[in-house]
Amino acid sequence: MEAILQTTSWQERYHASDIYTLRCKVPDQPGMLGRLICAIGTANSHVGSIQTVGIERSSKIRDIQIYCHNNEHLQALMGILAETEGVEVLSTRNDVLESHRRGAIETVSRVPIRTLTDLRMVYTPGVASVCNEIVRDPETAWDLTGLCDRVAIVTNGTAVLGLGNIGVRASLPVMEGKAAIFAQFAKISAVPILVDTEDPQAIIETVCRIASGFGAIQLEDISAPACFEIEQQLQQKLDIPVLHDDQHGTAIVTLAAVINAIKRTQRKAADCSAVILGAGAAGVAIAKILMNFGVQDIVVYDSCGPLYRGRTERMNPYKQQLAEVTNPSNLQGDLIEGFRGRDIFIGVAKPDMVSKEMVSVMAEDALVFPLSNPVGEISVEDAMDAGAAVAADGRVINNALAYPGLFRGALDAKAKAITADMQLAAASTLAALALEGALLPEMLNLQTHAEVARAVAQAAE
Amino acid sequence: MEAILQTTSWQERYHASDIYTLRCKVPDQPGMLGRLICAIGTANSHVGSIQTVGIERSSKIRDIQIYCHNNEHLQALMGILAETEGVEVLSTRNDVLESHRRGAIETVSRVPIRTLTDLRMVYTPGVASVCNEIVRDPETAWDLTGLCDRVAIVTNGTAVLGLGNIGVRASLPVMEGKAAIFAQFAKISAVPILVDTEDPQAIIETVCRIASGFGAIQLEDISAPACFEIEQQLQQKLDIPVLHDDQHGTAIVTLAAVINAIKRTQRKAADCSAVILGAGAAGVAIAKILMNFGVQDIVVYDSCGPLYRGRTERMNPYKQQLAEVTNPSNLQGDLIEGFRGRDIFIGVAKPDMVSKEMVSVMAEDALVFPLSNPVGEISVEDAMDAGAAVAADGRVINNALAYPGLFRGALDAKAKAITADMQLAAASTLAALALEGALLPEMLNLQTHAEVARAVAQAAE
Repeated sequence: MEAILQTTSWQERYHASDIYTLRCKVPDQPGMLGRLICAIGTANSHVGSIQTVGIERSSKIRDIQIYCHNNEHLQALMGILAETEGVEVLSTRNDVLESHRRGAIETVSRVPIRTLTDLRMVYTPGVASVCNEIVRDPETAWDLTGLCDRVAIVTNGTAVLGLGNIGVRASLPVMEGKAAIFAQFAKISAVPILVDTEDPQAIIETVCRIASGFGAIQLEDISAPACFEIEQQLQQKLDIPVLHDDQHGTAIVTLAAVINAIKRTQRKAADCSAVILGAGAAGVAIAKILMNFGVQDIVVYDSCGPLYRGRTERMNPYKQQLAEVTNPSNLQGDLIEGFRGRDIFIGVAKPDMVSKEMVSVMAEDALVFPLSNPVGEISVEDAMDAGAAVAADGRVINNALAYPGLFRGALDAKAKAITADMQLAAASTLAALALEGALLPEMLNLQTHAEVARAVAQAAE
Repeated sequence: MEAILQTTSWQERYHASDIYTLRCKVPDQPGMLGRLICAIGTANSHVGSIQTVGIERSSKIRDIQIYCHNNEHLQALMGILAETEGVEVLSTRNDVLESHRRGAIETVSRVPIRTLTDLRMVYTPGVASVCNEIVRDPETAWDLTGLCDRVAIVTNGTAVLGLGNIGVRASLPVMEGKAAIFAQFAKISAVPILVDTEDPQAIIETVCRIASGFGAIQLEDISAPACFEIEQQLQQKLDIPVLHDDQHGTAIVTLAAVINAIKRTQRKAADCSAVILGAGAAGVAIAKILMNFGVQDIVVYDSCGPLYRGRTERMNPYKQQLAEVTNPSNLQGDLIEGFRGRDIFIGVAKPDMVSKEMVSVMAEDALVFPLSNPVGEISVEDAMDAGAAVAADGRVINNALAYPGLFRGALDAKAKAITADMQLAAASTLAALALEGALLPEMLNLQTHAEVARAVAQAAE
């Protein structure tokens, strides 16, 4: 599957965010389904699953899942189907919206409540003895309640996916999606917590006040540089793990891919040089984890150029800190100068900012990771054309590979923090689990997340 | 079942908070199980379910659930079993603690995540179109996310059950128990939110900041009088329902029982007089709902005596308000004076504060509700002995009868508040659903909660 993702066409890069199911009625004759599917192909739509949902006297009713770029694309497809003889579209369902209808997650009771005895155990009067046990020994709260499995996903909605500052309410589907993945991949009970403020101190204060109900805190989609201050202060104030996923989840998965890419091209980390485009949450964390891993020559660009010692324009303390420890030659040139001779490119900025020319001036067998979402800094195909030995974008480097196992491991170890060592352990485990020829292991394989959790828990001890 | 609860012995009133399963090995001969069960009876323990879990060559292994007052009682039972010939106790499991192990609730994904397409719908890149839809029309957030089903259970742990101020961590099992009941009875996804502060303004501020993630707020186990201020201000500041369950859940179920009790004794609400013992969260709310229902002559006692106009000792604005509108004759006498000639007694104070003499001076066919937990102000048996026509305690008057349907109805109607009318609708529906001879309907019957929800939603419109 990964191979498929890595080789999709440029056009399909814009696909897949819209998925519909068309309920179609076609005559029950050989060749009719073929005619319908060909028509969909004519409209340049990909086809997903096909199910027969009804058989009438002389016709069949089928649900056909299709992928569109956007609504105009869907309308074009519908126009073509309307002109296809014998085909009748009975209804159109927006599968993405439907999958989020009433939310992607729900709370369920882990204990059956079928008898009055059940009720008296889970609630009054029985529950009083559980409370008393925790009063007697506060440590027992960890597994006499759901603390051992419960993570708050905290956002203020200021840096949501590629959408930017859309506010807390509109960010909720993302938080629920993350929680669904936590549940499915790591049996973690995650709770979206929307903190409706852009004031970092108010977020810190709010999270501190409600932190007693959680075993760990995942910060999510909070814009830089506020995200750094919030994460650092919460880590200092709380005795449970606090981690900003846009920084560290992304950095871990990126490092895992880099590990396999440098192995594939017979490099060593210490000999590699890297250029990172983007000095926001992900860029800062990727630079740090690469340094922790042993990459010594890194230069980080933002929209004003490279971070270097002495730069004054649009700096902040976090960029300043990076400027001190990266860019050993104190490079100050244009973006293309940052590419020249470098082994690794990592983009966490904006779509289509990198040209084939830039990739072509990199070192031989360059490793190119244009990770901006939903469309990378350069297409994987263009990067390969320009001479890259390995290229993978944000659909491959998905932080959902890291965060479920990372938090599961931290909770299992009852860790007070998710240390750099634990993050490196997650990255190297992901790298080791990748199948021959792939950069990363299968996300849908629960074993992947279990192995990451085990490695992280081990690193915690 | 309710009949059983209403007629349990005085001794059993102290039971049932401790429930154990004993794994017992007995010779596989007729009469041996009888000997074991009789021995348990000798120890004054009740027996719950019995299951055969193993058969060996000449013996059977059975799990026997038993009820104890406390640990001493369990030890006494174990002593008796140790001396019972042929009986060997292999292990003892604390069922109450086990039912709360890792928490009574968990978050699950409502959508399957089996394919990369599933993943791309629930998370990136598909989820972006759901976010965009909410940006386009913020109202769609209500059911394109879990808002329509999600309730925060907010506590600061200052008035937990009969345990008092035990702090937020130790209160968590209660919140999880409530959430399990929400899930089971009303398909509501409830989330315990522990706010670790005793400052009402800090609680209000915190709840306001995180309220965007919820469809309603249930306040729980917050001590009076802070609970009144917190509820009132949150109701003013937020456009979603905010309700303190210790006040209104209890009041609704109490009113439902009162409705059936006055019907059974052929009274009319307007002709009834009532004495309430306890001027905390529940007492204030019960007084108010009784007045809304039409009971005109109510007197409320706290630990200093009756609330009356002119009283200065240990008052607060909420007691003052009650003093203005209750106690029409401005009674100032001892507690027994409050009972004299009254039709209804409701206790929401402390165990064993009411004597048989007090009940005996009430009106003929008095209605007596000693609701303090886990033991009432007077036992149901003593109340009946002293001439009460109806007596029921906190095991019958359980707010879990009201709150699931109440919130379900409010969410279904997308109500901005839970009004007095909605609460009266819940109470009268509960009263109407009670089977012949019972004061209240069956809690375990999901239909009960569905009917309450329907009535509440209707009253909201």
